[in-house]
Amino acid sequence: MDATAARIERALTEAIEHVVVSGCPPRLAEAVRHAVFPGGARVRPRLCIAVAAACGSKDVVSADAAASAIELLHCASLVHDDLPCFDDSPLRRGVPSVHRAYGEPLAVLAGDALIILAFEHLARQLSDKPALLAPLLLTVGRSAGMPHGITAGQAWECEPKVSVEHYHRAKTGALFAAATAAGAQVAGADADAWRVVGDKIGEAYQVADDLRDVAASAQEVGKPVGRDALLNRPSAAGELGVEGAVARLKGLVQEAVDAIPECPGRERFAEVLVHEARHIMPKSLAQQAA
Amino acid sequence: MDATAARIERALTEAIEHVVVSGCPPRLAEAVRHAVFPGGARVRPRLCIAVAAACGSKDVVSADAAASAIELLHCASLVHDDLPCFDDSPLRRGVPSVHRAYGEPLAVLAGDALIILAFEHLARQLSDKPALLAPLLLTVGRSAGMPHGITAGQAWECEPKVSVEHYHRAKTGALFAAATAAGAQVAGADADAWRVVGDKIGEAYQVADDLRDVAASAQEVGKPVGRDALLNRPSAAGELGVEGAVARLKGLVQEAVDAIPECPGRERFAEVLVHEARHIMPKSLAQQAA
Repeated sequence: MDATAARIERALTEAIEHVVVSGCPPRLAEAVRHAVFPGGARVRPRLCIAVAAACGSKDVVSADAAASAIELLHCASLVHDDLPCFDDSPLRRGVPSVHRAYGEPLAVLAGDALIILAFEHLARQLSDKPALLAPLLLTVGRSAGMPHGITAGQAWECEPKVSVEHYHRAKTGALFAAATAAGAQVAGADADAWRVVGDKIGEAYQVADDLRDVAASAQEVGKPVGRDALLNRPSAAGELGVEGAVARLKGLVQEAVDAIPECPGRERFAEVLVHEARHIMPKSLAQQAA
Repeated sequence: MDATAARIERALTEAIEHVVVSGCPPRLAEAVRHAVFPGGARVRPRLCIAVAAACGSKDVVSADAAASAIELLHCASLVHDDLPCFDDSPLRRGVPSVHRAYGEPLAVLAGDALIILAFEHLARQLSDKPALLAPLLLTVGRSAGMPHGITAGQAWECEPKVSVEHYHRAKTGALFAAATAAGAQVAGADADAWRVVGDKIGEAYQVADDLRDVAASAQEVGKPVGRDALLNRPSAAGELGVEGAVARLKGLVQEAVDAIPECPGRERFAEVLVHEARHIMPKSLAQQAA
Protein backbone atom coordinates (compact mmCIF):
# COMPACT_ATOMS: atom_id res chain seq x y z
CA MET A 1 0.00 0.00 0.00
CA ASP A 2 1.46 3.39 -0.96
CA ALA A 3 1.49 6.38 1.39
CA THR A 4 -1.61 8.00 -0.12
CA ALA A 5 -3.60 4.78 0.06
CA ALA A 6 -2.62 4.40 3.71
CA ARG A 7 -3.74 7.97 4.45
CA ILE A 8 -7.12 7.35 2.82
CA GLU A 9 -7.77 4.08 4.67
CA ARG A 10 -6.72 5.70 7.95
CA ALA A 11 -8.99 8.71 7.42
CA LEU A 12 -11.96 6.50 6.54
CA THR A 13 -11.31 4.24 9.52
CA GLU A 14 -11.08 7.19 11.88
CA ALA A 15 -14.28 8.73 10.53
CA ILE A 16 -16.21 5.50 11.06
CA GLU A 17 -14.68 4.43 14.36
CA HIS A 18 -15.44 7.83 15.84
CA VAL A 19 -19.19 7.14 15.54
CA VAL A 20 -19.21 3.35 15.89
CA VAL A 21 -19.03 3.46 19.67
CA SER A 22 -21.01 2.09 22.59
CA GLY A 23 -24.73 2.42 21.99
CA CYS A 24 -24.50 2.19 18.20
CA PRO A 25 -26.70 -0.58 16.75
CA PRO A 26 -24.13 -3.32 16.01
CA ARG A 27 -25.56 -4.50 12.69
CA LEU A 28 -25.77 -0.95 11.36
CA ALA A 29 -22.10 -0.55 12.27
CA GLU A 30 -21.27 -3.79 10.43
CA ALA A 31 -23.24 -2.74 7.37
CA VAL A 32 -21.46 0.61 7.26
CA ARG A 33 -18.04 -1.04 7.52
CA HIS A 34 -19.05 -3.53 4.82
CA ALA A 35 -19.96 -0.63 2.54
CA VAL A 36 -16.58 1.06 2.95
CA PHE A 37 -14.04 -1.76 3.48
CA PRO A 38 -12.34 -3.23 1.63
CA GLY A 39 -12.59 -0.39 -0.83
CA GLY A 40 -12.27 -0.17 -4.57
CA ALA A 41 -9.53 1.86 -6.23
CA ARG A 42 -10.38 4.95 -4.08
CA VAL A 43 -10.00 6.98 -7.27
CA ARG A 44 -11.82 10.07 -6.01
CA PRO A 45 -9.97 10.54 -2.70
CA ARG A 46 -6.64 9.84 -4.45
CA LEU A 47 -7.50 12.56 -6.93
CA CYS A 48 -8.39 15.03 -4.19
CA ILE A 49 -5.14 14.41 -2.31
CA ALA A 50 -3.12 14.56 -5.53
CA VAL A 51 -4.57 17.96 -6.44
CA ALA A 52 -3.89 19.40 -2.99
CA ALA A 53 -0.29 18.16 -3.23
CA ALA A 54 0.14 19.41 -6.82
CA CYS A 55 -0.98 22.86 -5.63
CA GLY A 56 1.70 22.78 -2.92
CA SER A 57 -0.53 22.26 0.14
CA LYS A 58 1.04 20.77 3.26
CA ASP A 59 -2.34 20.63 5.08
CA VAL A 60 -2.68 16.86 5.28
CA VAL A 61 -5.58 16.92 7.76
CA SER A 62 -7.85 19.03 5.54
CA ALA A 63 -6.97 17.13 2.37
CA ASP A 64 -7.64 13.79 4.04
CA ALA A 65 -10.90 15.09 5.51
CA ALA A 66 -12.18 16.30 2.14
CA ALA A 67 -10.94 13.16 0.38
CA SER A 68 -12.58 10.80 2.85
CA ALA A 69 -15.85 12.78 2.92
CA ILE A 70 -16.06 12.39 -0.86
CA GLU A 71 -15.31 8.67 -0.64
CA LEU A 72 -17.97 8.20 2.08
CA LEU A 73 -20.54 9.82 -0.22
CA HIS A 74 -19.39 7.59 -3.06
CA CYS A 75 -19.79 4.48 -0.88
CA ALA A 76 -23.25 5.67 0.21
CA SER A 77 -24.32 6.07 -3.40
CA LEU A 78 -23.12 2.55 -4.26
CA VAL A 79 -25.15 1.08 -1.40
CA HIS A 80 -28.32 2.87 -2.48
CA ASP A 81 -27.75 2.29 -6.22
CA ASP A 82 -27.43 -1.46 -5.57
CA LEU A 83 -30.87 -1.61 -3.86
CA PRO A 84 -33.58 -3.80 -5.39
CA CYS A 85 -35.53 -0.73 -6.55
CA PHE A 86 -32.53 0.41 -8.64
CA ASP A 87 -29.92 -2.02 -10.00
CA ASP A 88 -30.75 -4.90 -7.65
CA SER A 89 -27.09 -5.82 -7.74
CA PRO A 90 -26.15 -8.96 -5.80
CA LEU A 91 -22.44 -8.12 -5.88
CA ARG A 92 -20.22 -5.11 -5.27
CA ARG A 93 -16.42 -5.20 -5.32
CA GLY A 94 -16.63 -8.98 -5.63
CA VAL A 95 -18.61 -9.54 -2.40
CA PRO A 96 -22.34 -9.44 -1.62
CA SER A 97 -23.85 -5.96 -1.84
CA VAL A 98 -24.96 -4.44 1.47
CA HIS A 99 -28.64 -5.28 1.04
CA ARG A 100 -27.78 -8.88 0.16
CA ALA A 101 -25.54 -9.19 3.21
CA TYR A 102 -27.61 -7.20 5.75
CA GLY A 103 -31.08 -6.79 4.25
CA GLU A 104 -32.76 -3.86 2.58
CA PRO A 105 -33.62 -1.82 5.71
CA LEU A 106 -30.01 -1.72 6.89
CA ALA A 107 -28.83 -0.91 3.36
CA VAL A 108 -31.09 2.15 3.27
CA LEU A 109 -29.91 3.20 6.74
CA ALA A 110 -26.23 2.49 6.10
CA GLY A 111 -26.38 4.77 3.04
CA ASP A 112 -28.09 7.48 5.09
CA ALA A 113 -25.56 7.11 7.89
CA LEU A 114 -22.65 7.40 5.44
CA ILE A 115 -24.05 10.60 3.91
CA ILE A 116 -24.45 12.14 7.36
CA LEU A 117 -20.99 10.94 8.39
CA ALA A 118 -19.39 12.60 5.38
CA PHE A 119 -20.57 16.03 6.51
CA GLU A 120 -20.02 15.38 10.21
CA HIS A 121 -16.48 14.16 9.60
CA LEU A 122 -15.68 17.26 7.57
CA ALA A 123 -17.07 19.51 10.30
CA ARG A 124 -15.15 17.66 13.01
CA GLN A 125 -11.81 17.64 11.19
CA LEU A 126 -12.08 21.29 10.16
CA SER A 127 -13.58 22.72 13.34
CA ASP A 128 -10.36 24.65 13.94
CA LYS A 129 -10.21 25.93 10.33
CA PRO A 130 -13.55 27.72 10.13
CA ALA A 131 -12.65 29.73 7.03
CA LEU A 132 -12.14 26.53 5.04
CA LEU A 133 -15.14 24.61 6.40
CA ALA A 134 -18.02 26.38 4.65
CA PRO A 135 -16.42 26.38 1.16
CA LEU A 136 -15.44 22.70 1.44
CA LEU A 137 -18.88 21.71 2.72
CA LEU A 138 -20.53 23.54 -0.15
CA THR A 139 -18.25 21.81 -2.65
CA VAL A 140 -18.98 18.40 -1.17
CA GLY A 141 -22.71 19.11 -0.83
CA ARG A 142 -22.96 20.32 -4.42
CA SER A 143 -21.45 17.05 -5.64
CA ALA A 144 -23.98 14.96 -3.75
CA GLY A 145 -27.37 16.64 -3.85
CA MET A 146 -29.66 18.60 -6.11
CA PRO A 147 -29.53 19.96 -8.77
CA HIS A 148 -26.39 18.37 -10.26
CA GLY A 149 -24.95 15.98 -7.66
CA ILE A 150 -24.88 12.19 -7.70
CA THR A 151 -28.38 11.90 -6.16
CA ALA A 152 -29.76 14.00 -9.00
CA GLY A 153 -27.75 11.93 -11.48
CA GLN A 154 -29.35 8.73 -10.22
CA ALA A 155 -32.76 10.43 -10.30
CA TRP A 156 -32.47 11.00 -14.06
CA GLU A 157 -33.07 7.23 -14.35
CA CYS A 158 -36.60 7.93 -12.98
CA GLU A 159 -37.48 10.64 -15.51
CA PRO A 160 -39.57 9.98 -18.62
CA LYS A 161 -37.30 12.34 -20.61
CA VAL A 162 -33.61 11.95 -19.76
CA SER A 163 -30.98 14.61 -20.31
CA VAL A 164 -27.99 12.35 -21.07
CA GLU A 165 -25.55 15.18 -20.50
CA HIS A 166 -27.01 16.04 -17.09
CA TYR A 167 -27.27 12.33 -16.28
CA HIS A 168 -23.59 11.50 -16.77
CA ARG A 169 -22.24 14.78 -15.48
CA ALA A 170 -24.19 14.40 -12.26
CA LYS A 171 -24.07 10.65 -11.74
CA THR A 172 -20.34 10.21 -12.31
CA GLY A 173 -18.77 13.59 -12.95
CA ALA A 174 -19.95 15.40 -9.84
CA LEU A 175 -17.74 13.59 -7.34
CA PHE A 176 -14.68 13.90 -9.60
CA ALA A 177 -15.28 17.62 -9.96
CA ALA A 178 -15.67 17.85 -6.18
CA ALA A 179 -12.42 15.93 -5.67
CA THR A 180 -10.35 18.34 -7.76
CA ALA A 181 -12.20 21.45 -6.51
CA ALA A 182 -11.85 20.43 -2.86
CA GLY A 183 -8.15 19.59 -3.33
CA ALA A 184 -7.66 23.07 -4.76
CA GLN A 185 -9.63 24.71 -1.94
CA VAL A 186 -7.47 23.00 0.67
CA ALA A 187 -4.43 24.52 -1.05
CA GLY A 188 -6.02 27.93 -1.50
CA ALA A 189 -5.89 27.45 -5.29
CA ASP A 190 -8.53 28.22 -7.93
CA ALA A 191 -11.32 25.68 -7.33
CA ASP A 192 -13.25 26.53 -10.50
CA ALA A 193 -10.22 26.01 -12.75
CA TRP A 194 -9.53 22.65 -11.13
CA ARG A 195 -13.21 21.71 -11.34
CA VAL A 196 -12.80 21.58 -15.15
CA VAL A 197 -10.05 18.97 -14.74
CA GLY A 198 -12.31 16.88 -12.51
CA ASP A 199 -15.19 17.18 -14.99
CA LYS A 200 -13.01 15.77 -17.78
CA ILE A 201 -11.64 12.95 -15.62
CA GLY A 202 -15.18 12.11 -14.53
CA GLU A 203 -16.30 11.94 -18.14
CA ALA A 204 -13.33 9.72 -19.00
CA TYR A 205 -14.15 7.50 -16.05
CA GLN A 206 -17.77 7.19 -17.21
CA VAL A 207 -16.60 6.11 -20.68
CA ALA A 208 -14.24 3.58 -19.08
CA ASP A 209 -17.11 2.29 -16.95
CA ASP A 210 -19.29 1.90 -20.06
CA LEU A 211 -16.43 0.04 -21.74
CA ARG A 212 -15.99 -2.26 -18.79
CA ASP A 213 -19.69 -2.99 -18.90
CA VAL A 214 -19.44 -4.27 -22.47
CA ALA A 215 -15.85 -5.54 -22.72
CA ALA A 216 -14.83 -6.90 -19.31
CA SER A 217 -15.74 -9.98 -17.33
CA ALA A 218 -17.80 -9.81 -14.13
CA GLN A 219 -14.81 -11.28 -12.31
CA GLU A 220 -12.54 -8.46 -13.44
CA VAL A 221 -15.05 -5.77 -12.46
CA GLY A 222 -16.43 -7.32 -9.26
CA LYS A 223 -20.05 -6.63 -10.18
CA PRO A 224 -22.42 -7.85 -12.91
CA VAL A 225 -21.63 -6.63 -16.45
CA GLY A 226 -23.87 -5.99 -19.44
CA ARG A 227 -26.25 -4.00 -17.21
CA ASP A 228 -26.36 -0.81 -19.31
CA ALA A 229 -27.88 -2.55 -22.33
CA LEU A 230 -30.17 -4.60 -20.07
CA LEU A 231 -31.41 -1.55 -18.18
CA ASN A 232 -31.41 0.57 -21.35
CA ARG A 233 -29.07 3.15 -19.83
CA PRO A 234 -27.22 5.64 -22.01
CA SER A 235 -23.70 4.33 -22.73
CA ALA A 236 -20.73 5.71 -24.66
CA ALA A 237 -19.81 2.20 -25.78
CA GLY A 238 -23.33 1.71 -27.08
CA GLU A 239 -23.31 5.01 -28.94
CA LEU A 240 -19.73 5.05 -30.30
CA GLY A 241 -18.80 1.37 -30.42
CA VAL A 242 -15.83 -0.01 -28.48
CA GLU A 243 -13.13 1.57 -30.67
CA GLY A 244 -14.91 4.90 -30.76
CA ALA A 245 -15.28 4.86 -27.00
CA VAL A 246 -11.58 4.05 -26.48
CA ALA A 247 -10.67 7.01 -28.69
CA ARG A 248 -13.09 9.23 -26.78
CA LEU A 249 -11.51 8.15 -23.49
CA LYS A 250 -8.03 9.03 -24.69
CA GLY A 251 -9.29 12.39 -25.96
CA LEU A 252 -10.86 13.20 -22.60
CA VAL A 253 -7.67 12.35 -20.70
CA GLN A 254 -5.76 14.70 -22.99
CA GLU A 255 -8.36 17.43 -22.40
CA ALA A 256 -7.99 16.90 -18.64
CA VAL A 257 -4.21 17.20 -18.93
CA ASP A 258 -4.53 20.38 -21.00
CA ALA A 259 -6.87 21.89 -18.38
CA ILE A 260 -4.48 21.46 -15.43
CA PRO A 261 -3.82 24.95 -14.05
CA GLU A 262 -0.29 26.25 -13.50
CA CYS A 263 0.95 24.86 -10.16
CA PRO A 264 4.16 23.53 -8.55
CA GLY A 265 3.33 19.87 -9.26
CA ARG A 266 1.80 20.26 -12.73
CA GLU A 267 4.04 17.85 -14.67
CA ARG A 268 3.99 15.09 -12.07
CA PHE A 269 0.19 15.38 -11.79
CA ALA A 270 -0.19 15.05 -15.57
CA GLU A 271 1.98 11.90 -15.58
CA VAL A 272 -0.10 10.31 -12.84
CA LEU A 273 -3.30 11.17 -14.69
CA VAL A 274 -2.19 9.43 -17.87
CA HIS A 275 -0.91 6.47 -15.87
CA GLU A 276 -4.18 6.09 -13.94
CA ALA A 277 -6.23 6.37 -17.14
CA ARG A 278 -4.62 3.15 -18.35
CA HIS A 279 -5.73 1.43 -15.12
CA ILE A 280 -9.39 2.28 -15.49
CA MET A 281 -9.68 0.61 -18.91
CA PRO A 282 -10.67 -3.07 -19.05
CA LYS A 283 -7.41 -5.08 -19.07
CA SER A 284 -7.96 -6.57 -22.51
CA LEU A 285 -8.50 -3.12 -24.06
CA ALA A 286 -5.57 -1.57 -22.21
CA GLN A 287 -3.30 -4.22 -23.72
CA GLN A 288 -4.63 -3.50 -27.21
CA ALA A 289 -4.30 0.25 -26.69
CA ALA A 290 -0.71 0.03 -25.35
CA MET B 1 -50.17 31.34 10.37
CA ASP B 2 -48.16 32.87 13.22
CA ALA B 3 -44.86 34.66 12.68
CA THR B 4 -42.72 31.65 13.67
CA ALA B 5 -44.62 29.33 11.34
CA ALA B 6 -44.15 31.81 8.51
CA ARG B 7 -40.40 31.98 9.20
CA ILE B 8 -40.13 28.18 9.12
CA GLU B 9 -42.05 27.78 5.86
CA ARG B 10 -40.00 30.58 4.28
CA ALA B 11 -36.69 29.03 5.38
CA LEU B 12 -37.70 25.59 4.08
CA THR B 13 -38.91 27.06 0.80
CA GLU B 14 -35.69 29.01 0.32
CA ALA B 15 -33.55 25.96 1.09
CA ILE B 16 -35.37 23.86 -1.49
CA GLU B 17 -35.80 26.50 -4.20
CA HIS B 18 -32.08 27.25 -4.06
CA VAL B 19 -31.31 23.77 -5.39
CA VAL B 20 -34.42 23.08 -7.45
CA VAL B 21 -33.16 25.05 -10.43
CA SER B 22 -32.58 24.43 -14.12
CA GLY B 23 -31.01 21.03 -14.70
CA CYS B 24 -32.56 19.39 -11.64
CA PRO B 25 -34.53 16.22 -12.46
CA PRO B 26 -38.15 17.51 -12.31
CA ARG B 27 -39.71 14.47 -10.62
CA LEU B 28 -37.03 14.42 -7.93
CA ALA B 29 -37.82 18.08 -7.27
CA GLU B 30 -41.54 17.24 -7.02
CA ALA B 31 -40.86 14.32 -4.66
CA VAL B 32 -38.74 16.53 -2.42
CA ARG B 33 -41.42 19.22 -2.27
CA HIS B 34 -44.04 16.56 -1.57
CA ALA B 35 -41.94 15.33 1.36
CA VAL B 36 -41.70 18.78 2.94
CA PHE B 37 -44.95 20.60 2.01
CA PRO B 38 -47.49 20.86 3.41
CA GLY B 39 -45.78 20.08 6.68
CA GLY B 40 -46.97 18.67 9.95
CA ALA B 41 -46.85 20.68 13.15
CA ARG B 42 -43.17 21.61 12.56
CA VAL B 43 -42.64 20.88 16.27
CA ARG B 44 -38.84 20.58 16.07
CA PRO B 45 -38.08 23.82 14.19
CA ARG B 46 -40.58 25.71 16.40
CA LEU B 47 -38.73 24.40 19.44
CA CYS B 48 -35.35 25.45 18.04
CA ILE B 49 -36.56 28.98 17.29
CA ALA B 50 -38.30 29.23 20.67
CA VAL B 51 -35.10 28.30 22.54
CA ALA B 52 -32.99 30.81 20.60
CA ALA B 53 -35.57 33.51 21.41
CA ALA B 54 -35.86 32.47 25.08
CA CYS B 55 -32.08 32.80 25.34
CA GLY B 56 -32.31 36.34 23.98
CA SER B 57 -30.86 35.77 20.49
CA LYS B 58 -31.71 38.26 17.76
CA ASP B 59 -29.90 36.19 15.09
CA VAL B 60 -32.94 35.18 13.05
CA VAL B 61 -30.90 33.88 10.09
CA SER B 62 -28.93 31.35 12.14
CA ALA B 63 -31.96 30.22 14.15
CA ASP B 64 -33.99 29.70 10.98
CA ALA B 65 -31.10 27.88 9.30
CA ALA B 66 -30.68 25.45 12.19
CA ALA B 67 -34.45 25.01 12.59
CA SER B 68 -35.00 24.26 8.91
CA ALA B 69 -31.97 21.92 8.70
CA ILE B 70 -33.46 19.88 11.54
CA GLU B 71 -36.88 19.82 9.86
CA LEU B 72 -35.32 18.72 6.54
CA LEU B 73 -33.67 15.78 8.33
CA HIS B 74 -36.98 14.96 9.99
CA CYS B 75 -38.77 14.97 6.62
CA ALA B 76 -36.02 12.78 5.13
CA SER B 77 -36.45 10.25 7.91
CA LEU B 78 -40.22 10.12 7.38
CA VAL B 79 -39.74 9.41 3.68
CA HIS B 80 -37.30 6.57 4.34
CA ASP B 81 -39.26 5.17 7.33
CA ASP B 82 -42.38 4.94 5.13
CA LEU B 83 -40.58 2.78 2.53
CA PRO B 84 -41.90 -0.74 1.87
CA CYS B 85 -38.88 -2.30 3.60
CA PHE B 86 -39.78 -0.46 6.84
CA ASP B 87 -43.34 0.61 7.69
CA ASP B 88 -44.70 0.37 4.13
CA SER B 89 -46.96 3.28 4.99
CA PRO B 90 -49.38 4.33 2.25
CA LEU B 91 -50.15 7.65 3.93
CA ARG B 92 -48.27 10.47 5.57
CA ARG B 93 -49.86 13.68 6.82
CA GLY B 94 -53.11 12.55 5.23
CA VAL B 95 -51.75 12.25 1.68
CA PRO B 96 -49.93 9.44 -0.14
CA SER B 97 -46.42 8.80 1.17
CA VAL B 98 -43.59 9.73 -1.20
CA HIS B 99 -42.99 6.18 -2.46
CA ARG B 100 -46.70 5.74 -3.14
CA ALA B 101 -46.85 9.02 -5.05
CA TYR B 102 -43.49 8.87 -6.88
CA GLY B 103 -42.24 5.28 -6.60
CA GLU B 104 -39.63 3.71 -4.41
CA PRO B 105 -36.51 4.86 -6.30
CA LEU B 106 -37.47 8.52 -6.03
CA ALA B 107 -38.41 8.07 -2.37
CA VAL B 108 -34.92 6.74 -1.61
CA LEU B 109 -33.35 9.60 -3.58
CA ALA B 110 -35.62 12.31 -2.16
CA GLY B 111 -34.62 11.22 1.36
CA ASP B 112 -30.95 11.31 0.38
CA ALA B 113 -31.33 14.71 -1.25
CA LEU B 114 -33.04 16.12 1.86
CA ILE B 115 -30.26 14.90 4.16
CA ILE B 116 -27.65 16.50 1.92
CA LEU B 117 -29.70 19.68 1.65
CA ALA B 118 -29.91 20.00 5.44
CA PHE B 119 -26.12 20.26 5.72
CA GLU B 120 -25.68 22.33 2.57
CA HIS B 121 -28.33 24.81 3.67
CA LEU B 122 -26.68 25.23 7.06
CA ALA B 123 -23.28 25.80 5.42
CA ARG B 124 -24.73 28.31 2.97
CA GLN B 125 -26.68 30.32 5.54
CA LEU B 126 -23.80 30.40 8.01
CA SER B 127 -20.91 30.90 5.59
CA ASP B 128 -20.33 34.36 7.08
CA LYS B 129 -20.49 33.05 10.68
CA PRO B 130 -17.68 30.49 10.59
CA ALA B 131 -17.36 30.24 14.38
CA LEU B 132 -20.97 29.07 14.67
CA LEU B 133 -20.98 26.75 11.66
CA ALA B 134 -18.90 23.82 12.96
CA PRO B 135 -20.68 23.53 16.35
CA LEU B 136 -24.12 23.71 14.70
CA LEU B 137 -23.14 21.20 12.04
CA LEU B 138 -21.92 18.80 14.70
CA THR B 139 -25.14 19.19 16.70
CA VAL B 140 -27.26 18.52 13.63
CA GLY B 141 -25.05 15.65 12.46
CA ARG B 142 -25.12 14.00 15.88
CA SER B 143 -28.92 14.01 15.86
CA ALA B 144 -29.08 12.31 12.49
CA GLY B 145 -26.33 9.71 12.23
CA MET B 146 -24.49 7.10 14.26
CA PRO B 147 -24.26 6.24 17.13
CA HIS B 148 -27.38 7.91 18.62
CA GLY B 149 -29.12 9.85 15.85
CA ILE B 150 -32.41 9.06 14.11
CA THR B 151 -30.76 6.73 11.59
CA ALA B 152 -29.35 4.66 14.44
CA GLY B 153 -32.75 4.78 16.14
CA GLN B 154 -34.43 3.32 13.10
CA ALA B 155 -31.66 0.73 12.82
CA TRP B 156 -32.53 -0.67 16.26
CA GLU B 157 -35.60 -2.13 14.54
CA CYS B 158 -33.17 -4.36 12.60
CA GLU B 159 -31.33 -5.72 15.63
CA PRO B 160 -32.10 -9.12 17.20
CA LYS B 161 -31.63 -7.58 20.69
CA VAL B 162 -33.14 -4.12 21.03
CA SER B 163 -32.07 -1.56 23.58
CA VAL B 164 -35.45 0.16 24.14
CA GLU B 165 -33.80 3.13 25.78
CA HIS B 166 -31.37 3.67 22.92
CA TYR B 167 -34.17 3.02 20.43
CA HIS B 168 -36.49 5.77 21.67
CA ARG B 169 -33.79 8.23 22.60
CA ALA B 170 -32.29 7.99 19.13
CA LYS B 171 -35.38 7.52 16.99
CA THR B 172 -37.41 10.36 18.47
CA GLY B 173 -35.36 12.13 21.11
CA ALA B 174 -32.31 12.97 19.02
CA LEU B 175 -33.91 15.65 16.85
CA PHE B 176 -35.61 17.29 19.85
CA ALA B 177 -32.31 17.40 21.71
CA ALA B 178 -30.71 18.89 18.59
CA ALA B 179 -33.48 21.49 18.35
CA THR B 180 -32.91 22.81 21.86
CA ALA B 181 -29.11 22.48 21.70
CA ALA B 182 -28.92 24.29 18.34
CA GLY B 183 -31.25 27.04 19.56
CA ALA B 184 -28.95 27.54 22.54
CA GLN B 185 -25.83 27.54 20.33
CA VAL B 186 -27.29 30.25 18.11
CA ALA B 187 -27.76 32.37 21.23
CA GLY B 188 -24.35 31.53 22.68
CA ALA B 189 -26.06 29.76 25.60
CA ASP B 190 -25.24 26.42 27.24
CA ALA B 191 -26.10 23.77 24.64
CA ASP B 192 -25.65 20.81 27.00
CA ALA B 193 -28.04 22.23 29.61
CA TRP B 194 -30.67 22.86 26.92
CA ARG B 195 -30.08 19.41 25.44
CA VAL B 196 -31.60 17.93 28.63
CA VAL B 197 -34.81 19.91 27.98
CA GLY B 198 -34.95 18.57 24.43
CA ASP B 199 -34.39 15.02 25.64
CA LYS B 200 -37.38 15.27 27.98
CA ILE B 201 -39.62 16.84 25.34
CA GLY B 202 -38.58 14.14 22.89
CA GLU B 203 -39.45 11.44 25.39
CA ALA B 204 -42.82 13.10 26.04
CA TYR B 205 -43.44 13.31 22.31
CA GLN B 206 -42.64 9.61 21.90
CA VAL B 207 -45.17 8.73 24.61
CA ALA B 208 -47.75 10.97 22.90
CA ASP B 209 -47.01 9.23 19.60
CA ASP B 210 -47.49 5.83 21.22
CA LEU B 211 -50.79 7.08 22.68
CA ARG B 212 -51.95 8.37 19.31
CA ASP B 213 -51.13 4.98 17.83
CA VAL B 214 -53.52 3.21 20.24
CA ALA B 215 -56.09 5.91 21.04
CA ALA B 216 -56.54 8.10 17.95
CA SER B 217 -58.16 7.60 14.57
CA ALA B 218 -56.14 7.38 11.37
CA GLN B 219 -57.98 10.49 10.17
CA GLU B 220 -56.84 12.50 13.18
CA VAL B 221 -53.22 11.39 12.83
CA GLY B 222 -52.93 11.39 9.02
CA LYS B 223 -51.20 8.00 8.91
CA PRO B 224 -52.23 4.43 9.76
CA VAL B 225 -52.68 3.70 13.49
CA GLY B 226 -52.21 0.51 15.48
CA ARG B 227 -48.82 -0.04 13.80
CA ASP B 228 -46.74 -0.46 16.98
CA ALA B 229 -48.61 -3.55 18.10
CA LEU B 230 -48.73 -4.87 14.54
CA LEU B 231 -44.99 -4.40 14.01
CA ASN B 232 -44.22 -5.45 17.60
CA ARG B 233 -42.46 -2.18 18.38
CA PRO B 234 -41.77 -1.08 21.95
CA SER B 235 -44.54 1.31 23.08
CA ALA B 236 -45.19 3.23 26.30
CA ALA B 237 -48.93 2.74 25.86
CA GLY B 238 -48.37 -1.00 25.50
CA GLU B 239 -46.15 -1.13 28.60
CA LEU B 240 -47.98 1.28 30.91
CA GLY B 241 -51.55 1.22 29.60
CA VAL B 242 -53.28 4.37 28.35
CA GLU B 243 -53.73 5.98 31.78
CA GLY B 244 -50.20 5.16 32.84
CA ALA B 245 -48.84 6.61 29.61
CA VAL B 246 -50.84 9.83 30.05
CA ALA B 247 -49.40 10.21 33.56
CA ARG B 248 -45.91 9.53 32.21
CA LEU B 249 -46.38 12.19 29.54
CA LYS B 250 -47.42 14.81 32.11
CA GLY B 251 -44.47 13.86 34.31
CA LEU B 252 -42.03 14.27 31.43
CA VAL B 253 -43.40 17.70 30.53
CA GLN B 254 -42.89 18.77 34.13
CA GLU B 255 -39.33 17.42 34.08
CA ALA B 256 -38.70 19.37 30.88
CA VAL B 257 -40.03 22.56 32.50
CA ASP B 258 -37.86 22.00 35.58
CA ALA B 259 -34.78 21.54 33.38
CA ILE B 260 -35.11 24.89 31.56
CA PRO B 261 -31.92 26.85 32.27
CA GLU B 262 -32.02 30.41 33.62
CA CYS B 263 -32.60 32.75 30.63
CA PRO B 264 -34.48 35.95 29.76
CA GLY B 265 -37.52 34.12 28.36
CA ARG B 266 -37.73 31.27 30.85
CA GLU B 267 -41.32 31.76 32.05
CA ARG B 268 -42.81 32.34 28.64
CA PHE B 269 -40.97 29.29 27.28
CA ALA B 270 -42.34 27.10 30.09
CA GLU B 271 -45.90 28.28 29.33
CA VAL B 272 -45.53 27.45 25.65
CA LEU B 273 -44.13 24.03 26.51
CA VAL B 274 -47.12 23.11 28.66
CA HIS B 275 -49.50 24.52 26.06
CA GLU B 276 -47.90 22.54 23.22
CA ALA B 277 -47.90 19.35 25.30
CA ARG B 278 -51.68 19.48 25.30
CA HIS B 279 -51.65 19.67 21.49
CA ILE B 280 -49.60 16.53 20.98
CA MET B 281 -52.04 14.31 22.88
CA PRO B 282 -54.83 12.61 20.94
CA LYS B 283 -57.86 14.96 21.06
CA SER B 284 -60.05 12.54 22.99
CA LEU B 285 -57.40 12.09 25.71
CA ALA B 286 -56.60 15.81 25.88
CA GLN B 287 -60.28 16.50 26.61
CA GLN B 288 -60.28 13.89 29.37
CA ALA B 289 -57.02 15.21 30.80
CA ALA B 290 -58.13 18.87 30.76
